Amino acid sequence: MGIALGPGDDAAVIEGGWVISTDLCLEGVHFERTWLEDKEIGFRAVSCALSDLAAMAAAPVGVFISIAANEEEVVESLQSGCRTAASEVGAVILGGDLSRTLGPVFINVVVLGSTHRPGLRSGALPGNNIWVTGRLGATSTAVVVWQRGGDPPLEAREAFAQPSPRCTEACYLVGEGIANALIDLSDGLVGDLGHIAAASGVQIILEEASVPVAPIALEVLGPEQATEAALYGGEDYELCFSAGPGAVDPAYFKEHFGLEVTRIGSVREGCGVWIDRGGTRLEPAERTGFNHYPMDLV
Amino acid sequence: MGIALGPGDDAAVIEGGWVISTDLCLEGVHFERTWLEDKEIGFRAVSCALSDLAAMAAAPVGVFISIAANEEEVVESLQSGCRTAASEVGAVILGGDLSRTLGPVFINVVVLGSTHRPGLRSGALPGNNIWVTGRLGATSTAVVVWQRGGDPPLEAREAFAQPSPRCTEACYLVGEGIANALIDLSDGLVGDLGHIAAASGVQIILEEASVPVAPIALEVLGPEQATEAALYGGEDYELCFSAGPGAVDPAYFKEHFGLEVTRIGSVREGCGVWIDRGGTRLEPAERTGFNHYPMDLV
Repeated sequence: MGIALGPGDDAAVIEGGWVISTDLCLEGVHFERTWLEDKEIGFRAVSCALSDLAAMAAAPVGVFISIAANEEEVVESLQSGCRTAASEVGAVILGGDLSRTLGPVFINVVVLGSTHRPGLRSGALPGNNIWVTGRLGATSTAVVVWQRGGDPPLEAREAFAQPSPRCTEACYLVGEGIANALIDLSDGLVGDLGHIAAASGVQIILEEASVPVAPIALEVLGPEQATEAALYGGEDYELCFSAGPGAVDPAYFKEHFGLEVTRIGSVREGCGVWIDRGGTRLEPAERTGFNHYPMDLV
Repeated sequence: MGIALGPGDDAAVIEGGWVISTDLCLEGVHFERTWLEDKEIGFRAVSCALSDLAAMAAAPVGVFISIAANEEEVVESLQSGCRTAASEVGAVILGGDLSRTLGPVFINVVVLGSTHRPGLRSGALPGNNIWVTGRLGATSTAVVVWQRGGDPPLEAREAFAQPSPRCTEACYLVGEGIANALIDLSDGLVGDLGHIAAASGVQIILEEASVPVAPIALEVLGPEQATEAALYGGEDYELCFSAGPGAVDPAYFKEHFGLEVTRIGSVREGCGVWIDRGGTRLEPAERTGFNHYPMDLV
């Protein structure tokens, strides 16, 4: 049938190196209209969906956008933001569907990408290190502040409004044979490490003290809750990957992509994700510590 | 970029003969929960989306399904119907996304198909005839009866609940070089003929008396409103196509596919769709005569 990889990873891969993924974004679940302007909501919906292409080390080609909203003006603003996000990565709008609704705003984004060598969740090997790009927790910080009724600081707000799908970085990491298992951080670091561990049939040890926490998270939430946000709060849309010893050159990466890459743990035989909190014992990681989207089913 | 055909037809065509389309289906706009069981709603959402593959003469390969609903049980029933519709045409579920919502049920279906020779809206030529498969108006009859607060007769209900995407028939018509312009009837016959006329740069004369009206529409709505339903009521999901003189053999078609194919008009130079009501003058076709989905933006 020409299906190289079906459901179970971040996207499906079909013959010819095409990668396809679908992502829904729903008012009252993934965002509130009071948090962002409509243009930003559209921009964010497409950027989050494009991150699934980054997870597969695919270059963005096109997007299909379905929108349901209550007014034509709202639809136009959402579409305008969608177009901006697509064009920023060189993707074109290939199709879509529109409907008016009196219910919550709904955006479904399908992304189409191209890859010669897909990044998968399943290649981590005992002895590998675990790495993450960027710093984590700023998006969650914005959500926490909004949920408390406040206005988040600009840096946190922008982390939420303008996530950067790391497609170029992912293509480099997989294309150069550096990353052997790859995922984008949408569910939260611990949850997404769980996906790599399960797909690869390995155990991952996460070294809590090594996790790069966003300064704005530390400032707003304090060290304890900021670490929780970095470990369990989702939607950082950074890359997380495993690589053999000596495979990653953080200085080269920083120079080429303007982005930090940090070693945060290691891979060994076994299963599940365990956290090294610096004490004598490892603790099994719970995925339920910090989750602002209890309505999400997957 | 590998994009053979972007937006403007029923689906996008990408390198390798892949066809992709996205279709949204929203409670309160495209269906009411009181009309159908949840399984049927899922089945119908996928069948309607698959019809976009028929419009492109593509064979179904896979589907991606995004669902937002209020209870896990509802999600499971919707998914079960989606799976049945996909498996009936040999397609597999390639991915999806789920969320809980307190708002209306929302299903977005992305279909992936494969074709060596896509059917397009743009090939109709002066001197061609216009043909339609099946009989029209039964789906609209069900909607009208529901909207009046009644229960539609079984035949009309089934036309709504179980549309048949005409993929096999479309692959035959285009593959054998019979149809030179093709569309599926989702917006209504007159509206969809307008798409063929515009894309092909021709005028289409629709002969009202030749349009095959579903017997159940005539029975329930009476001759005048049944004809309105056949001409303007959408979602019959039959095929409409243009073909050169003598290209279509209705007896062979009926024998092979168990489905009628009826000549309903002709193509000439000019633009737009005109209706021959049997009098001395042609009337320009209005698209707004009969439309149960005023909320639909596209």
